Amino acid sequence: MVMKVHGAVLSTAAMRVFATLYEKDLEFEFVPVDMGAGEHKQERFLALNPFGQVPAFEDGDLQLFESRAITQYIAFAYKDKGTPLLCEGKPMATVSVWMEVEAHQFDTAASKLQWELMFKSIFGMATDAAVVEENEAKLSKVLDVYEARLSQSKYMGGDCFTLADLHHLPVLTNLMGTTVKKLFDARPKVSAWAADI
Amino acid sequence: MVMKVHGAVLSTAAMRVFATLYEKDLEFEFVPVDMGAGEHKQERFLALNPFGQVPAFEDGDLQLFESRAITQYIAFAYKDKGTPLLCEGKPMATVSVWMEVEAHQFDTAASKLQWELMFKSIFGMATDAAVVEENEAKLSKVLDVYEARLSQSKYMGGDCFTLADLHHLPVLTNLMGTTVKKLFDARPKVSAWAADI
Repeated sequence: MVMKVHGAVLSTAAMRVFATLYEKDLEFEFVPVDMGAGEHKQERFLALNPFGQVPAFEDGDLQLFESRAITQYIAFAYKDKGTPLLCEGKPMATVSVWMEVEAHQFDTAASKLQWELMFKSIFGMATDAAVVEENEAKLSKVLDVYEARLSQSKYMGGDCFTLADLHHLPVLTNLMGTTVKKLFDARPKVSAWAADI
Repeated sequence: MVMKVHGAVLSTAAMRVFATLYEKDLEFEFVPVDMGAGEHKQERFLALNPFGQVPAFEDGDLQLFESRAITQYIAFAYKDKGTPLLCEGKPMATVSVWMEVEAHQFDTAASKLQWELMFKSIFGMATDAAVVEENEAKLSKVLDVYEARLSQSKYMGGDCFTLADLHHLPVLTNLMGTTVKKLFDARPKVSAWAADI
């Protein structure tokens, strides 16, 4: 039975799961959730994720939600397929540290910038300049740490490309289409890493 | 060489690591970081955690930060000591889902309430009633999902006590000393779980 991803194309969380499946060369069925029609808040979807957020994931009888839990499941369960995403032989704990950094340091600022500079214009809403300024300052500090980290190791989690890098991809790609790109461009190691991944 | 935890007693993130070490019956050295004196922003500490936040952790040559990465390292590396925290034999992926839920659903609202209702009064600052109301509403929705989850399984991650429960402990314990306790009391499964863990 083929795996199923219930998601929406604009969802960066769903994109995180698609990117993992793509790296792993795995087939899956994409089940579109019509968020405009509120399908994610209806009983059928809530049975998959009680928080009513995309993505939700099925692999046989196993049902999961929360994008970063899904990517970790895929990386471990399909270890031998496609790109290795765990840097085997190196401490997994270091990969975990930088996965947490992505979730708690990078994503908090980056997602707000993505909302202000990309999604709001898609939805015809006005950008809040103060929110942009505040979060550009936060993201700059995070990227300063990344610049130092990437001077010591090729990837966030160590010598190899792992989920600690991949988890950045969807939001990072979207920010590259906005004025926030300048924050990446100003840091040589960070911008080489962003281009690489 | 004994493990070291660099932290502060008021830090709920450091408490998360202490609770794990306690469950695992492991000896460790507590290295107090004087945050009042800004020690966490000085070079010596930044070498342990470039983001300048407690806790930081050392086990021999391995240096880690981010509390949830540290607890996972301890749970895996010291699997055979003290309380098992991983529910072996059951899918780790389900434990991961509920660890993500703690970090992204519970903690975001609960930490803001803890700040408004506990830390602000410790620091002699005024509570913002609007922030309390907004986050009580968010936390209520999360606890509704928890009530349903705990009707199906004894613990968040399945039949056994795991990190998915333990990660809640520090903030949950603090909230029990505030008016937010009513949100837990109103939900029988949640309040039994809170008392149990």
